[in-house]
Amino acid sequence: MDPKSVALIGISRRSGPGSFNLMETMCDFGYSGEIYPVNPSAGEILGKKAFPDVTAVKKEIDLAVITTPRETTLKILQDCVAANIKAAIVVNQGFNDADHLGRQMHRQMVEMAAGDGIRILGPNTLGIINSFAGFTTSFMPVTRQRVGIGLICQSGIHFVGPNNFSGMIGKGIDLGNSCDIGLYDALKYFADDPDIQVIAVHMEGLNQINDFLTLAARVVKEKPMVVHKGGRSDTGAKAAMSHTGSLAGDYKLIQAAMKQAGITFLEESGQMPYAVKTQHHLPPMRGNRVAVITFSGAAGIIIIDGLERHGLQLAALSPETIDQVAALSPGWMPLSNPLDIWPAVMKHGAGKVYSLALEAVLNDPNVDGIVCVAIAPLPEFSFLNVAEALNEVVENSPREKPVIGWTYGPNSTEVQTQFESKNRIMVYPTLELATWALTWLRDRCKIMMRHDEI
Amino acid sequence: MDPKSVALIGISRRSGPGSFNLMETMCDFGYSGEIYPVNPSAGEILGKKAFPDVTAVKKEIDLAVITTPRETTLKILQDCVAANIKAAIVVNQGFNDADHLGRQMHRQMVEMAAGDGIRILGPNTLGIINSFAGFTTSFMPVTRQRVGIGLICQSGIHFVGPNNFSGMIGKGIDLGNSCDIGLYDALKYFADDPDIQVIAVHMEGLNQINDFLTLAARVVKEKPMVVHKGGRSDTGAKAAMSHTGSLAGDYKLIQAAMKQAGITFLEESGQMPYAVKTQHHLPPMRGNRVAVITFSGAAGIIIIDGLERHGLQLAALSPETIDQVAALSPGWMPLSNPLDIWPAVMKHGAGKVYSLALEAVLNDPNVDGIVCVAIAPLPEFSFLNVAEALNEVVENSPREKPVIGWTYGPNSTEVQTQFESKNRIMVYPTLELATWALTWLRDRCKIMMRHDEI
Repeated sequence: MDPKSVALIGISRRSGPGSFNLMETMCDFGYSGEIYPVNPSAGEILGKKAFPDVTAVKKEIDLAVITTPRETTLKILQDCVAANIKAAIVVNQGFNDADHLGRQMHRQMVEMAAGDGIRILGPNTLGIINSFAGFTTSFMPVTRQRVGIGLICQSGIHFVGPNNFSGMIGKGIDLGNSCDIGLYDALKYFADDPDIQVIAVHMEGLNQINDFLTLAARVVKEKPMVVHKGGRSDTGAKAAMSHTGSLAGDYKLIQAAMKQAGITFLEESGQMPYAVKTQHHLPPMRGNRVAVITFSGAAGIIIIDGLERHGLQLAALSPETIDQVAALSPGWMPLSNPLDIWPAVMKHGAGKVYSLALEAVLNDPNVDGIVCVAIAPLPEFSFLNVAEALNEVVENSPREKPVIGWTYGPNSTEVQTQFESKNRIMVYPTLELATWALTWLRDRCKIMMRHDEI
Repeated sequence: MDPKSVALIGISRRSGPGSFNLMETMCDFGYSGEIYPVNPSAGEILGKKAFPDVTAVKKEIDLAVITTPRETTLKILQDCVAANIKAAIVVNQGFNDADHLGRQMHRQMVEMAAGDGIRILGPNTLGIINSFAGFTTSFMPVTRQRVGIGLICQSGIHFVGPNNFSGMIGKGIDLGNSCDIGLYDALKYFADDPDIQVIAVHMEGLNQINDFLTLAARVVKEKPMVVHKGGRSDTGAKAAMSHTGSLAGDYKLIQAAMKQAGITFLEESGQMPYAVKTQHHLPPMRGNRVAVITFSGAAGIIIIDGLERHGLQLAALSPETIDQVAALSPGWMPLSNPLDIWPAVMKHGAGKVYSLALEAVLNDPNVDGIVCVAIAPLPEFSFLNVAEALNEVVENSPREKPVIGWTYGPNSTEVQTQFESKNRIMVYPTLELATWALTWLRDRCKIMMRHDEI
């Protein structure tokens, strides 16, 4: 994923918005290696001499990226073999996602990869992103961010960014229709990659699934893995066959096998960015006992509902913790968990009371994890904004208990960014997701502690 | 909810941020009626003469808002009765959410309301919001927006705005601990209110539940109702008791009764803003048959999984629809539902292809509802942004089929706003929520069509 020289075969003379010129997106992303554009009808492309075909380059080429129509692909792959190129990415679609002819060409690519010493990624792929090395083959613009998250997917949508996933991909591999490189190969790459700490997978088909699962069971001890699988329904599975030409398999079986391997297996695609950031930034939760600190009684109750649903429980706070908060609360206020601190806040101010409560539960031996419910006020009510105060407490405590946030109010986007600014508190859009996050961290702890080798 | 004169009892002399001065938030919100501040130790408050107690006002007063400590509340309520005030809001907490003394005072308030000709909202409430009349009693700042959404809740959090709920409340009633005014009373108010088209309810306890359900079964024929209930778990129910002093009841029983009444009953609080905007802006869905138009095969498959989970189905598109899209697609492209239009977009441009596809499915007699998956590109790739093109198509078609959107990419916030700008296409943060939305609209249709009077 860090080639020094690339041949771009079928690259357009057009550039600028709407041209989807890969050479341009590649350079914009930061690639500084050799580029050999191949286009028989162009003399030069973006200032570089163009070659009529790849065998005319006569230089060492680490990777060929092929974006020509499907009819030409096999001949070009043969040229690549002749030019001693060991790796190719086939971007175009129209193979086993399409008609009889497409499936036939797909089989020929499978045979070439098996016999002719060339590895093929795709077809039907945006290829790879490597933010660390500044290399991408995506013709859609992607943000470059050196985060320790490796993404394996079967669709370009995950490169472009489903909502909050943008900017969360340190390295990405889009397997497309997987005529050669599959789930196991991609996982092996990230398993051995010191830049990558968390591995996210969006899969549809089950290419190399047995090897993938065996390797995953080892990988998860060191690197958390989060998987979502499309095609769980019968109709969805059929659609997956026409999308990437892959067999979707029995969903319940896959789900059980993934969980057994120690993977965070998501039932909803919308949870992906939250599960990934949770595993990337928060410590595992060592037990089931959760403390809730809240400005709002109603939010506390919804969290309790979520905890019970997931087999977590409200921590029985130690008398020391209760006493510390009680000292700031009105005498009539019954205090337990959730710690409803609003009456104390009205008397002593938000920052002081919340900091004290958070410090108390962080030190409380009866507590394994913490949910903080706070208000996201407009700037003129910033005295109610506890983002800075809470981060100060968390930064001065060991990274032993996860601290989860949820905010309500008119300024959520800005305040949530403040909460997450130190990567020590993660915030979620709903109370339900906040409790899900704790379950992922509890499961993470169980995986890290299991002794049996699989 | 539209008083001409208000006594503010216990109002502070302090003003500005941090004072939570109700008189100030009330005037900022747009109230122009008479205000009588009551504070025995202040001569004047914010330029208005202050009265030592409410009986000294000697004018007609529509509403008293009481914010004094709990020990004084009963005496003040008696003063209100003496001053012939017919309605009071008790803001403070410390009653049946607190200790023995608090519960005793709560019972006395119940008796006063029953016998002394005064209606009481609260205690433990932010009171009311009426954006249409420009009146609020919330000491937390709230945005004023004349939207036809009425909110009934048991917690101020819903006034302040859990995430996206800000600005979606046309009128709001916070029941607090409900010593008198309860769920039924509030529902009755909105049922008769021509400004209100959709009624949202966050409840914990079951105050007036039988009357509420009976009325709801009638109301929903005209006005959709969306309900979330906190305290579904055993521990949550106990916490609800200490939060608002209310019995949470058997969750499964409530759930069944709500559904029977024709209410959109939400299992997750995070769905509330989405369910409300769905019912407010989109037409009911007349059948189960959904067309999906998508730039992304992977998203299409996740939607199919969601449809199957909810008992919806992929529409069998008519040959006319398929032919129209096929005319723009490469010959090898297998076309069905989901309509994967990316290859056609690459050839003919996003706006043209998407408009044609959307028009085709809107006219297709085999289609009851539509999900549009589109990209949310950065401004320099605006040629891929179909928000305007789709709105033009939808605006020129009758309001008969719901059109749901989901976007992916780096510019989601801005593009989603563009999608929703005409209130004809609603957008959701996850594909899962997008399919939920269709189920709400299908259920809505069933409710409107049922003949049996309950």
